[in-house]
Amino acid sequence: MKIGDSASFEKTISEFDVYQFAGITGDFNPIHINKVEAEQSVFGERIVHGMLAGSLLSTVIGMYMPGKGTIYMEQDCKFVSPIKIGDTIKATVTCEEIINFEKRIVKLGNFVTNQDGKTVIEGYSVVKVPKGRIEKSEE
Amino acid sequence: MKIGDSASFEKTISEFDVYQFAGITGDFNPIHINKVEAEQSVFGERIVHGMLAGSLLSTVIGMYMPGKGTIYMEQDCKFVSPIKIGDTIKATVTCEEIINFEKRIVKLGNFVTNQDGKTVIEGYSVVKVPKGRIEKSEE
Repeated sequence: MKIGDSASFEKTISEFDVYQFAGITGDFNPIHINKVEAEQSVFGERIVHGMLAGSLLSTVIGMYMPGKGTIYMEQDCKFVSPIKIGDTIKATVTCEEIINFEKRIVKLGNFVTNQDGKTVIEGYSVVKVPKGRIEKSEE
Repeated sequence: MKIGDSASFEKTISEFDVYQFAGITGDFNPIHINKVEAEQSVFGERIVHGMLAGSLLSTVIGMYMPGKGTIYMEQDCKFVSPIKIGDTIKATVTCEEIINFEKRIVKLGNFVTNQDGKTVIEGYSVVKVPKGRIEKSEE
């Protein structure tokens, strides 16, 4: 992995996902699980838990880039637009900065976008990359 | 809600939670779902997805403080220690700073601790508090 490399994971978020996430985390905020109440809110309908959508960034990091063996040190998510049930969202991670080459600490830029290309989350991750999986960029 | 107020949510994280979270997010990193491989890792056993544990902060915010009607703007999580399957973790949110009183934007300090009182996550949230639910601190 070197600066500029990126990887993505894309998924349609179903009502099932949102209800299971509520059950796992205990976050039964009506904005996520009460259609009637959510219709009267500023969002006009039920929205997906921001942390569920943000967790797709963890999927990219753990599964694809840098992948298995990565140690997750930090995740920051700015929730910039609501995600609706049924939205197809794409989490993208880009190698942005090698913070410490010897310790293999890297900063990854993050975007989550929806099916209309609109950014729903932006943020960054800090990770420790497995041995032998990081290249210094060419000068 | 005023500066210094806090609220918590506590839960034992089961194997079920971790497997359901993997199914919802697509994060089937072996460190979470492969006992044999995880035993050979630096952690010595399967660990809980960091973002699953971090999501309990969202539970506190959406359910208890500031609660219903809160708009979640940002979540930062530093994963400082691993969480094992079976750990009982407590997510605590404290009102730390009123960023903008007129716009009702508040910064919440976050800690997640385990049953031994060890910090597993530290971070912060930025939220927009519902109308009439924020008090200026006394001078």
